[in-house]
Amino acid sequence: MRDDTIPKLIAELCRQFYGLGWVTGTGGGISIRGAEGIYMAPSGVQKERIVPEDVFLLEAGDFSCCRVVRAPANPSLRVSECQPLFFNAYRLRDAGAVIHSHSVWAVLAARMFAPHGHRGAFVSEGLEMQKGLRGKGCFDRVRIPIIANTPREAELTESMADAMQTHPDVDAVLVAGHGVYVWGIDWVQAKTQAECLDYLFRAVVESDRLALTRAEGAER
Amino acid sequence: MRDDTIPKLIAELCRQFYGLGWVTGTGGGISIRGAEGIYMAPSGVQKERIVPEDVFLLEAGDFSCCRVVRAPANPSLRVSECQPLFFNAYRLRDAGAVIHSHSVWAVLAARMFAPHGHRGAFVSEGLEMQKGLRGKGCFDRVRIPIIANTPREAELTESMADAMQTHPDVDAVLVAGHGVYVWGIDWVQAKTQAECLDYLFRAVVESDRLALTRAEGAER
Amino acid sequence: MRDDTIPKLIAELCRQFYGLGWVTGTGGGISIRGAEGIYMAPSGVQKERIVPEDVFLLEAGDFSCCRVVRAPANPSLRVSECQPLFFNAYRLRDAGAVIHSHSVWAVLAARMFAPHGHRGAFVSEGLEMQKGLRGKGCFDRVRIPIIANTPREAELTESMADAMQTHPDVDAVLVAGHGVYVWGIDWVQAKTQAECLDYLFRAVVESDRLALTRAEGAER
Amino acid sequence: MRDDTIPKLIAELCRQFYGLGWVTGTGGGISIRGAEGIYMAPSGVQKERIVPEDVFLLEAGDFSCCRVVRAPANPSLRVSECQPLFFNAYRLRDAGAVIHSHSVWAVLAARMFAPHGHRGAFVSEGLEMQKGLRGKGCFDRVRIPIIANTPREAELTESMADAMQTHPDVDAVLVAGHGVYVWGIDWVQAKTQAECLDYLFRAVVESDRLALTRAEGAER
Repeated sequence: MRDDTIPKLIAELCRQFYGLGWVTGTGGGISIRGAEGIYMAPSGVQKERIVPEDVFLLEAGDFSCCRVVRAPANPSLRVSECQPLFFNAYRLRDAGAVIHSHSVWAVLAARMFAPHGHRGAFVSEGLEMQKGLRGKGCFDRVRIPIIANTPREAELTESMADAMQTHPDVDAVLVAGHGVYVWGIDWVQAKTQAECLDYLFRAVVESDRLALTRAEGAER
Repeated sequence: MRDDTIPKLIAELCRQFYGLGWVTGTGGGISIRGAEGIYMAPSGVQKERIVPEDVFLLEAGDFSCCRVVRAPANPSLRVSECQPLFFNAYRLRDAGAVIHSHSVWAVLAARMFAPHGHRGAFVSEGLEMQKGLRGKGCFDRVRIPIIANTPREAELTESMADAMQTHPDVDAVLVAGHGVYVWGIDWVQAKTQAECLDYLFRAVVESDRLALTRAEGAER
Repeated sequence: MRDDTIPKLIAELCRQFYGLGWVTGTGGGISIRGAEGIYMAPSGVQKERIVPEDVFLLEAGDFSCCRVVRAPANPSLRVSECQPLFFNAYRLRDAGAVIHSHSVWAVLAARMFAPHGHRGAFVSEGLEMQKGLRGKGCFDRVRIPIIANTPREAELTESMADAMQTHPDVDAVLVAGHGVYVWGIDWVQAKTQAECLDYLFRAVVESDRLALTRAEGAER
Repeated sequence: MRDDTIPKLIAELCRQFYGLGWVTGTGGGISIRGAEGIYMAPSGVQKERIVPEDVFLLEAGDFSCCRVVRAPANPSLRVSECQPLFFNAYRLRDAGAVIHSHSVWAVLAARMFAPHGHRGAFVSEGLEMQKGLRGKGCFDRVRIPIIANTPREAELTESMADAMQTHPDVDAVLVAGHGVYVWGIDWVQAKTQAECLDYLFRAVVESDRLALTRAEGAER
């Protein structure tokens, strides 16, 4: 993928994610690694209206800090507050892309498995869409770590890194009351995993609501 | 923002809000303040089919009355019945834009916190999307006032103004069985807050439906 | 409205209604009266793919029978099976347009108020969107008749006509397990009423699911 | 239908099915039979981004094996893992097209009727949309077989064939935790049946959630 196509792709994916309900109210975001550095959508803007010129290019050499290589012409745009969290995935997992979604299904799934907003893990079993997750089959027990939210996004950096290290088999971290971070070796795998997880969150939450008593006991 | 772009933006936002389920059945509306006055979508029309020529321009000098500066060529169009409610936000809060949504999530949220249709307040806590609201953080307790509905929209003017004065920290008023009014310093903040609130209404309503008993007691 | 614009409008509305979930699986339909007769979408076709050339023109002189004035070039297309039901609205109410939706909200609403699939009435109260219905205010008690379904659509003709005569104040009839017929003096009023009713069906069904116990007793 | 239009149609339907939530996360797929052989979407790709050049053409002479007549230029594309399941419908039912959907409604419906993930049958009764299914009326009792999922899709081949043989009256098989396979004599019938089934799955699941106690006992 040529670097000059990445800002346009980021704008296009932001519009698509807005349609999915992942980035409404200026929430959420996306970042893609190119040959020249890390491309990142700006903070606090309407995601369905981003244009390629709004995208930041950040240095990829040292993930302990944030150096802007190329800023948007619009001086009011700031680097996403998620930047250190996106960098966690680049630094600890050598990711090629990271998606941050505020999907209501992520929030409901976190609430279901960590009702008091503390740590926990979302659990999914027996669903075919688990196959879209790296190394998982439909009969595996998938556990996605849930971390507690913090007043500022940057303060999540350490607990997200901890959760990543204790769950090396998955490429996502849920944040209670907030959303989910998902990454992959490239934007396609990051997006595929983000879609599969959103589906799993929804399927598990909606299953929980089914009045299964009538069906329990006797398979028809 | 140049005034001559506002009618086109209003038409575009009406189509977008129709897609979000906020303005179906000719309900809901939007108004934006420009240098020349107050722009307002017409009443009782199909919002997804509005064209820039349908937008009214009203005088902004005196918010106690409604003076039309420029009316649409189509003589059957009337100023929105919400006009005095939109003017509340211009008059009391110096708003730059106001959105009125009939989203079913607003109605369900109001019903949940004011089941008999009287006054009350919607409460949200611990949700990241609260950050999209002026001055709020994710650990604040957000309270959005709920007022009782009235037979005609204009009759809401006073109770909406009262609710605005007793809740100066938020930029929205819910109307039981009806919807929500949301404003901001400009159309971007009004839309961002409207999207965040719609998300909070949905997240709180859907959380209420979760069978949390299984998860309660033990964080996994 | 010029007659030569009606087939294009029907095709456009069919695509829009498909997006709303009203006419999937070739179900549902729409008919508009013009100066030259009654325009009607064909039966059993993919509604989101209809082109203006697929629309039938039927004689409006005698609503006791169905005479084709102009048939589509495609000989495999048939007049909608709903034709006698659409004609009920033209004949008994002098309608200008009729919409037939298979929306799942219509089916759930009918099920909620007539759980055994017999006759009954859907009831809505205290919802602002009732104002989109002819002659109704938000504090009225809106009753939409529900009739039992029949093996063939044409067999509904008489019971639909009966329900229309016993409920002269509303412009819609629900059919249990099936959907809803909605009409109006023109296509705009028919569509507005169809959107408002779909909203009311959903709002009442979703309210029913809320666990209101927590909120009951004390308005906050 | 000319063969050279089929790859374009497949790409178009994939985008439409993505919008319906049937093929997110690279899941699901579609295959259409032409004069020259069997056209099939590739495996594990983003379905809303497929272009006609990505579509495989497979030999239709012998359904016991998979011979590629024409492969996409892109060498990383593989034939769908669903290929033997699609071939079941071509071989046993002389289908003209097969759709595989991962719709969450299919998964919830299967869970409702086979809560332990074993064999069973989804049951629908009294719904008009049953008429969109081959040979069914709205008062029939429709039974769609549910089979247990397997670690690899190809391993479903035999149990799917068994279910097809014991349920010759329907053109679909549900797979627990996975989705549904639906076919028809051509792509239009396959799509119509897939849409009707998705509607039935949803209507039955959502009906199950209604608190019908209030309405039970007395038809209003």
